[in-house]
Amino acid sequence: MNPTVTVRAADQPVAAIDEQAHAWSPATARARFRDGLTGPTAGVAAGHTQVNLISVPADWAYDMLLFCQRNPKPCPVLDVTDAGSWTTVLADGADLRTDLPRYRVWRDGELVDEPTDVRAHWRGDLVSFLIGCSFTFESALTGAGVPIRHVEQGRNVPMYVTGRQCRPAGRLHGPMVVSMRPVPPQHVAAALRETGLLPAVHGAPVHCGDPSALGIADLGRPDFGDPVDLEPDDIPMFWACGVTPQAAVMASRPPFAITHAPGQMFLTDARDEQYRIVA
Amino acid sequence: MNPTVTVRAADQPVAAIDEQAHAWSPATARARFRDGLTGPTAGVAAGHTQVNLISVPADWAYDMLLFCQRNPKPCPVLDVTDAGSWTTVLADGADLRTDLPRYRVWRDGELVDEPTDVRAHWRGDLVSFLIGCSFTFESALTGAGVPIRHVEQGRNVPMYVTGRQCRPAGRLHGPMVVSMRPVPPQHVAAALRETGLLPAVHGAPVHCGDPSALGIADLGRPDFGDPVDLEPDDIPMFWACGVTPQAAVMASRPPFAITHAPGQMFLTDARDEQYRIVA
Repeated sequence: MNPTVTVRAADQPVAAIDEQAHAWSPATARARFRDGLTGPTAGVAAGHTQVNLISVPADWAYDMLLFCQRNPKPCPVLDVTDAGSWTTVLADGADLRTDLPRYRVWRDGELVDEPTDVRAHWRGDLVSFLIGCSFTFESALTGAGVPIRHVEQGRNVPMYVTGRQCRPAGRLHGPMVVSMRPVPPQHVAAALRETGLLPAVHGAPVHCGDPSALGIADLGRPDFGDPVDLEPDDIPMFWACGVTPQAAVMASRPPFAITHAPGQMFLTDARDEQYRIVA
Repeated sequence: MNPTVTVRAADQPVAAIDEQAHAWSPATARARFRDGLTGPTAGVAAGHTQVNLISVPADWAYDMLLFCQRNPKPCPVLDVTDAGSWTTVLADGADLRTDLPRYRVWRDGELVDEPTDVRAHWRGDLVSFLIGCSFTFESALTGAGVPIRHVEQGRNVPMYVTGRQCRPAGRLHGPMVVSMRPVPPQHVAAALRETGLLPAVHGAPVHCGDPSALGIADLGRPDFGDPVDLEPDDIPMFWACGVTPQAAVMASRPPFAITHAPGQMFLTDARDEQYRIVA
């Protein structure tokens, strides 16, 4: 999937997720996405916290919250809504049904739609989980001088389903998903340190080096996002990924769920440094 | 409440929570408590993670888990059991019904019993939450040269109900409880740093200095635990406390709950450094 940029109506002002999107406020980004703009959100409204979305019926909410508690590296929960609510304390005036660039709608574990607005699919019993996203630590990595290859190459971050099973919770089970960033050897220590200080957004990597240790056969064929080119000597570093609940939906087949599309996140008003451990 | 040491049967070997208790293994500590030994557990099985216990009926478990997610400083969840189970992944072979020094049993928000064994009170629908405890960071404080006054003085840590309300979750609401440690000024920075690196066990303090800012009228009259003497120049430092769910039980009055007695914690096999952010 390549980054795509669309504007819904021809008479709307042209907007694109480009270098200027770094400087957008989160409210501006949400308004643009509400108006139909789509595409991966890495780098958008830089310094503001992006989150994964998963909404499940209320009778699945305890299993989902327990699944997240038991798997805090892939599923760090930053907010949970009350049933039926589409608002969150993390973003003033936001509507979780319209303000993401693109959604995925799931029935019995099968992907049935990828709309840019889920008001037609919304149910009064949906509980929404906002889960930390590794895009949050990319500003910390950039600040520490660590290059971000997928941003340099204008691509979505590559994500892979691993052979590691999450700890199950009630009816929910499934494999851990990871995101991968190639890091030059001289920057590995900084990448470990900077992300370790952000446990609310996946924290330190779960693995560095040989992808086969995670059951990943081919870095060039990610399960979500785009392949990214490694520079010579780059070491692949793998972080637990907030797409993991989507993998649990596919494996566990709850009757209904709504999620974000991988890489196309919800922009909150929170600032990345709010989640940084001060040490 | 002063530290008390009792042994159930006269023909059992005498055991006491004394300086030797530092060197006990967690399994030894659990066995001693199972045999009837009681008292505050600060310093017991040093370096091993101690946790708060709260068990509620399954139909209150989602509210409790959400309350913890929404109030992560006082309520960092380290494990949640399946309904009816008295085992935990955090302690091999342990029985949550017998292995704590002392329990509290609650009906409709009222304390009805303080036994050393809750097998007679157990119900098949109880879900148990194991919540990080500030005793865990005391070994880090000691390692950094920070004196622990209540340990020096052989007392339970003082705990206070504050005027700060937690963020409610469903039927659960209540004030935040804090523990207080007096810290000499030259050690304040180390105390902040060391505890900040342990977010799973309450993390950095919620307040330093004037207790009235938290609505605490008199440091000499804690709501739980013992008063502790401040040395001249000591600064009171306040950490969010895992007794907070007990305050929520008192305020929200669920029909039934079991908790640990304040300061008399469950000893897990986990090591404190497992919860330390590496930076």
